[in-house]
Amino acid sequence: MAQTEYSDLEKAINTLVSNFHAASSDNRPTLKADEFKNLLSSQMPNLVKSDHFGEVLKQMGVKDGEGISFKHFWSLIQNLATTQHGLLSHEKLSKCTCLLL
Amino acid sequence: MAQTEYSDLEKAINTLVSNFHAASSDNRPTLKADEFKNLLSSQMPNLVKSDHFGEVLKQMGVKDGEGISFKHFWSLIQNLATTQHGLLSHEKLSKCTCLLL
Repeated sequence: MAQTEYSDLEKAINTLVSNFHAASSDNRPTLKADEFKNLLSSQMPNLVKSDHFGEVLKQMGVKDGEGISFKHFWSLIQNLATTQHGLLSHEKLSKCTCLLL
Repeated sequence: MAQTEYSDLEKAINTLVSNFHAASSDNRPTLKADEFKNLLSSQMPNLVKSDHFGEVLKQMGVKDGEGISFKHFWSLIQNLATTQHGLLSHEKLSKCTCLLL
């Protein structure tokens, strides 16, 4: 990794995208449920409770037996970032999903 | 910052949110155009061409004279991440906005 060429923000975007790609064992566009579960367990142990894995998938709009696309993954990231933003802003969140965090 | 407590992915999300907050001089929920321009210049010099600043704002859904909310900022991040994802996937992008990257 070229540490000097990219800003923190660019590196952060790259980290999000790379993590999704790295989680796929066969470089397919979607992740299998197990691959995604491993990704969450290793990268989001503080954020996602593993016993709610099925609910997390449902919140991301993943249907039964469907692979997890980058779009699905992004909806989770967006949810977490928006929650984090709300916490940092000391704003009262009007809608709390309570499964994440 | 506690480097050991959070995963790369969690830190990446935090970086995105923190950068938006740090760009505001008076801790308001929205950024002024100048504040946002400074954020892009410092953090996304490789991604956003400054001579297209007005177009970038338009793509983000920011109306004339309006402050830049986290939601606006997030639409830019999403756009960049989706583009990056497409590039890494060697997928042909069906819709190229061409202002970013």
